[in-house]
Amino acid sequence: MIDYARYDRVRAVAWQGDHLRLLDQRLLPFEQAWIDCRDDAAVGAAIRSLAVRGAPAIGIAAAWGVVLAAASIDAADGAAALAGLRPRLDALEAARPTAVNLAWALRRMAARLTVAGADWRDALAAEAAAIEAEDLAANHRMGQLGAALIAPGSAVLTHCNTGSLATAGFGTALGVIRAGVAEGRITRVFAGETRPWLQGARLTLWELMEDGIDATLVADAAAAWLMATGAVQWVVVGADRICANGDVANKIGTYSLAIAARQPRRRVNVVAPYTTRDHDTPHRGQIEIEQRDPTELLSLGGVRTAAHGSKAWNPVFDVTPAALIDAIVTERGVVERPDATRLRALAG
Amino acid sequence: MIDYARYDRVRAVAWQGDHLRLLDQRLLPFEQAWIDCRDDAAVGAAIRSLAVRGAPAIGIAAAWGVVLAAASIDAADGAAALAGLRPRLDALEAARPTAVNLAWALRRMAARLTVAGADWRDALAAEAAAIEAEDLAANHRMGQLGAALIAPGSAVLTHCNTGSLATAGFGTALGVIRAGVAEGRITRVFAGETRPWLQGARLTLWELMEDGIDATLVADAAAAWLMATGAVQWVVVGADRICANGDVANKIGTYSLAIAARQPRRRVNVVAPYTTRDHDTPHRGQIEIEQRDPTELLSLGGVRTAAHGSKAWNPVFDVTPAALIDAIVTERGVVERPDATRLRALAG
Repeated sequence: MIDYARYDRVRAVAWQGDHLRLLDQRLLPFEQAWIDCRDDAAVGAAIRSLAVRGAPAIGIAAAWGVVLAAASIDAADGAAALAGLRPRLDALEAARPTAVNLAWALRRMAARLTVAGADWRDALAAEAAAIEAEDLAANHRMGQLGAALIAPGSAVLTHCNTGSLATAGFGTALGVIRAGVAEGRITRVFAGETRPWLQGARLTLWELMEDGIDATLVADAAAAWLMATGAVQWVVVGADRICANGDVANKIGTYSLAIAARQPRRRVNVVAPYTTRDHDTPHRGQIEIEQRDPTELLSLGGVRTAAHGSKAWNPVFDVTPAALIDAIVTERGVVERPDATRLRALAG
Repeated sequence: MIDYARYDRVRAVAWQGDHLRLLDQRLLPFEQAWIDCRDDAAVGAAIRSLAVRGAPAIGIAAAWGVVLAAASIDAADGAAALAGLRPRLDALEAARPTAVNLAWALRRMAARLTVAGADWRDALAAEAAAIEAEDLAANHRMGQLGAALIAPGSAVLTHCNTGSLATAGFGTALGVIRAGVAEGRITRVFAGETRPWLQGARLTLWELMEDGIDATLVADAAAAWLMATGAVQWVVVGADRICANGDVANKIGTYSLAIAARQPRRRVNVVAPYTTRDHDTPHRGQIEIEQRDPTELLSLGGVRTAAHGSKAWNPVFDVTPAALIDAIVTERGVVERPDATRLRALAG
């Protein structure tokens, strides 16, 4: 049994009864400041500005944002409330385009409203709490399923941040790593830096240090060479979107790791909640990749690094073909050598 | 004919008749400051501190360092001068361990001394000037040979800095890119950022902007995805050491690009002077990789980025197997599908 109190000390999203506290992830690892959101506009702004990030955490924050929006709506039942809340739901959904969890959480809040009566405010709060609790439970389950794939004595490499900061707690890929460390299967953890935002350096290492888990940073450019030296047995990453055929959209750099893991042969494990799966996207050709401001790459911490006149190509995500993935871990089970048929079986 | 005055405006190493001026590359792209070296200790310090970097530029700077060292030696002929200079040559050679050009340039200066008479000071100065002039000529030749491999309308991706700043001028891989742009073969240039020192962002983009060549920065983690989108036809990189069998040690991140270039199929072109070839290293298993201070990776521009307690794995170079390389371009000719036999033929 994993001691979750020992291996999961950080929380990024914390409902306070009447407002939502978000840990401002832009300031980590050296400043721990909380943003108190008292209306849905504040939650939307926090999502847009990346103060809260990570697909599941964004969905949970948005669900609580709907609860905050409800305070300014007067309605006799859920259906009437939904009519009033619709523009606010749309505004929350528009805050980040690629992550499917955001839209999924908002659809779930809307669905709960359609069946709610006069107690629709309580129903909304209960639904947001359920989304959060289910995410944590799913992460615990994925941790167990994913860690079971990893042979004792393994070293793993992860990318970006998929931990407690990105979820209701414990994390997806980082939850597998926490579970693997707790069970003594994982003996060494490497984290990729993850330019341009440095989520690996700033967030993943901070989380792991908070839990007392030893970890080593590597430059993104060095990860392939790290694998070539034989120092890593598994690449364990999250997913922002899983196509019907198993193609995975995730933080830019994931595809590079998956290619490198094939030569020599390492294993690649994608860990993400079932809601990340997108039936409507048959394969990677249909995914539109969000591009961010080039200045993120042309500067570092506000300090310009590249010559004036330089352009930058700054995609947020890449897409890893299913053929490069050994296992997709969701709370509903593990799909090895993923394809459309095996993934469909998860729907059960 | 390439207009070199138009496509090669930057110089990093400039002999001033009685001292050596080095462009301080640690301060680029936003400050152009020169270091005036009046003795060999100052040149060694500049090499050690990375004020001057790039294998050929280091060799040239060291050669001029020997000329400066000569000023404090009293000797009747070259052999006697060499005896007095030996500790100074050894100190210069120890300034950077991995690059073979440094040792090669110092051996060449020593060899010239052994056959010099009373005019040994003039002989040293002539030898340093010859090393510099031959490097520039070799780069022009490599530029022509390498550009001829590239089909008109191609886009290329380079890594680190292999340009005028890293050489006597024009550059090796960046010389091929300059020649390709000048001849209209290359229509788009991408430069990888190259963490932890950001030579791509800071140096390569600056050089290209100085010459008026349009270029786009990409995060190291995004390079594989850039290739997957079909935006790049050639990866063009330099080399710090070429094994007898064609395995290539170069800036960390090169191996990652070479793997990614194979899937889908792109072409990889290593451009380096013949002196980079190391007959005594049969293959990659014999190369020792220089590790640098972990704090370079744990911070950015002096600002800590990773949580306290984090470790870092910070190799300077990686090694790309010959099997992943399409062509090695040297001033002596092009070796396609390099192996020990084909490379040996270059010795002629």
